[in-house]
Amino acid sequence: MPVDAPRPRVVIVGGGFGGLYCAMGLRHSSVDVTLVDRRNFHLFQPLLYQVATGGLSPANIAAPLRGILKRQKNARVWLGEVADFDVATKEVIFTDGGRLPYDILVIAAGSTHHYFGKDSEWEPIAPGLKSIEDATEIRRNVLSAFEAAEREPDPEKRKQLMTFAVVGGGPTGVEMAGAIAELAHITMRKDFRAIDPAECRVLLIEGQTRVLPMFHESLSAKAAKSLKSLGVECWLDCHVTAVTPEFVEVTFDANKETRRVATKTIVWAAGVKASGLGRKLVERLAATAEVDRGGRVSVSPDCSIPGFPECFVIGDMMSLKNAEGKPLPGVAPVAMQQGHYVADVIDRRVRGKPARAPFSYWDKGSMATIGRGRAVVEVGRLKYAGFIAWLTWLFIHILYLARFENRALVLFQWFFNYVTRNRAARLITGMPVENHPTTRG
Amino acid sequence: MPVDAPRPRVVIVGGGFGGLYCAMGLRHSSVDVTLVDRRNFHLFQPLLYQVATGGLSPANIAAPLRGILKRQKNARVWLGEVADFDVATKEVIFTDGGRLPYDILVIAAGSTHHYFGKDSEWEPIAPGLKSIEDATEIRRNVLSAFEAAEREPDPEKRKQLMTFAVVGGGPTGVEMAGAIAELAHITMRKDFRAIDPAECRVLLIEGQTRVLPMFHESLSAKAAKSLKSLGVECWLDCHVTAVTPEFVEVTFDANKETRRVATKTIVWAAGVKASGLGRKLVERLAATAEVDRGGRVSVSPDCSIPGFPECFVIGDMMSLKNAEGKPLPGVAPVAMQQGHYVADVIDRRVRGKPARAPFSYWDKGSMATIGRGRAVVEVGRLKYAGFIAWLTWLFIHILYLARFENRALVLFQWFFNYVTRNRAARLITGMPVENHPTTRG
Repeated sequence: MPVDAPRPRVVIVGGGFGGLYCAMGLRHSSVDVTLVDRRNFHLFQPLLYQVATGGLSPANIAAPLRGILKRQKNARVWLGEVADFDVATKEVIFTDGGRLPYDILVIAAGSTHHYFGKDSEWEPIAPGLKSIEDATEIRRNVLSAFEAAEREPDPEKRKQLMTFAVVGGGPTGVEMAGAIAELAHITMRKDFRAIDPAECRVLLIEGQTRVLPMFHESLSAKAAKSLKSLGVECWLDCHVTAVTPEFVEVTFDANKETRRVATKTIVWAAGVKASGLGRKLVERLAATAEVDRGGRVSVSPDCSIPGFPECFVIGDMMSLKNAEGKPLPGVAPVAMQQGHYVADVIDRRVRGKPARAPFSYWDKGSMATIGRGRAVVEVGRLKYAGFIAWLTWLFIHILYLARFENRALVLFQWFFNYVTRNRAARLITGMPVENHPTTRG
Repeated sequence: MPVDAPRPRVVIVGGGFGGLYCAMGLRHSSVDVTLVDRRNFHLFQPLLYQVATGGLSPANIAAPLRGILKRQKNARVWLGEVADFDVATKEVIFTDGGRLPYDILVIAAGSTHHYFGKDSEWEPIAPGLKSIEDATEIRRNVLSAFEAAEREPDPEKRKQLMTFAVVGGGPTGVEMAGAIAELAHITMRKDFRAIDPAECRVLLIEGQTRVLPMFHESLSAKAAKSLKSLGVECWLDCHVTAVTPEFVEVTFDANKETRRVATKTIVWAAGVKASGLGRKLVERLAATAEVDRGGRVSVSPDCSIPGFPECFVIGDMMSLKNAEGKPLPGVAPVAMQQGHYVADVIDRRVRGKPARAPFSYWDKGSMATIGRGRAVVEVGRLKYAGFIAWLTWLFIHILYLARFENRALVLFQWFFNYVTRNRAARLITGMPVENHPTTRG
């Protein structure tokens, strides 16, 4: 390539694990990187449930993208929401009509909540946990429910206010249910006079026959035991059939029994679907790539769209099978590794080096925490639970969090906040109390 | 009093400096205290400008009221917004219709923004700085303006986006203007590629002939000098005549000259008025107490409403003159001291002890900070500025903040956040970018 040829423009849509790691992976590449996100920060999603239960502040788990990339001279950050693609002119189109040209496109826009067809009805009542605003909304709902119960003279209404339903028994649901139970039984125990928060009811609703179904059975059993000791009730092998501001209704698959539980706080941790941008790009390209029901794009082994080597889809938005033929899960480590991988693919191409071997996911294992001091870890055939698992979980999270901030600061701040059971961030912000559903007339 | 007589019920409206210090002051009293607030936390308002410029998170300056009072057995917290009073039955009435009986009433509901008659037109455009939501809204506006400028091709529009107007040259306005300038000139200096944040324009608009007019002239001069070196332009002896989403208009009192400045971000630090509850209570009681234009109730020397010794009004809501005949300012130390004072008055009454002497404000001085490392301090005739003044300011604030939290934690967290210029809390939260006024079509 002649010295003064323009450098390839790489546009990365999404500043989450996939997009950010891709941008950083290109720091020594002779390309111009533009990282686009509709938010100005990178969010460490695995810890959103901590914000949702007042254990951490948003700023503890989010880092401004500009701060992270400021020393990377070939990268810039562009705040905007991508709506469409002009594949003829090779431009990304924003919701406000603005356009951004690309030579290489990496789509890493993540996923959003999936309500199985009931999005418009259920979403306003049962927030998911994918964004900072989701987390602060859940926080507001949970804390306001206790506040309203303190003032409620009617025992039936009080019971309703002190009932919490978490839908989905994967890591997110288990973590949320455990954290709400901890908030009630430990942190806020002495804060009220008319009610005893420990008398609240926390329900965890799961469609399969065990919680954490993606983990080994023995770990599911340990998690269930920990949840029980925390005061969480697990309803298994059932699915939600109604979500209203007054109750949640569940049907058990085995005997078709239907149960209705009066509650004012429902958290949705049950399903995700990919950002619609994957399907949109495939349509615009008139590509033959399959897009599954969850919106995930089936990519080539190098994470590009079949037939369009300049377009990559990574993270929660893509569908790819691992060496054993099993589809890769929509988890952070997959996105991170694909981000780095695609950066390398692009770099080799630009340098004229031989192509990289197909993407191969290095499964370093899975973890889920059930509450302070309890977790489960599964790495290959190694499985363990309890306090050591929790320390592992804590350590890994601090390590990844600290990548983007002053390490000493994050470590200390986070460690103190979390370990001292402080939950100092349990503020009800964002909505005047008289407008809150739990305190409206 | 017979042993089994019911204890007097003290209802305190407002969990700010006045109300909270009053509640805590009654901890050894034979009374039942109910602290009512429409928020579930105590807010350290002097540091709101730090949240507004991304230097601190809301949780760094707010502490849950229940957490603060949980060990005080005679106190409970009631979340609700007071709308009215039934003085016949001696009950406080909430917006949702609920009622709370009292024997002794302490109103400490603070103050809100004052737009000099233009509240409904100017408030949506130029937020004040009195609540957490104000602060995060300003933060969103300031950060979004830079983001939009980065993407803006038109130089005139870019200049408009990078112009910030702060109305009001008291401590709040000076602190905001200095912090925005610091954000642009230091923290975010390398974060952008298309713009240089240091080229922004920060205007401080003040009606009197000097900034910090309540301080000694020599300190006003020092503050003005510090502001100038930070890049803040001070427009003095002028008042705002128009506030729109595209510009702010100012008329100079001396020569009647009018200037219009194109800006998309205006912060209102220019005036406060008392909560309307003071006037409402006076009306309901049919008391003869004067209520001034700002809504402040003229109280007796013991802070009660003349003729109604069971009703107290303290803090920003009251009007009282000091020993020299000057009205007490609406600042935190006044509210804190009055809170303690009224608690003592009530306690003596309950115990049948002689009444306390009239309230006497112990003026421990005033401080204002202009940016990192610069402040002014005035204590009686002692006046100093510069770095030592800033250390004083830092120390006093940490001391007061730490009263309500684990001291070591707050000290460290806050110290690190602030001193390392981290401004890690500069997240744009709460509104999707395409809906933001600075990025709308």
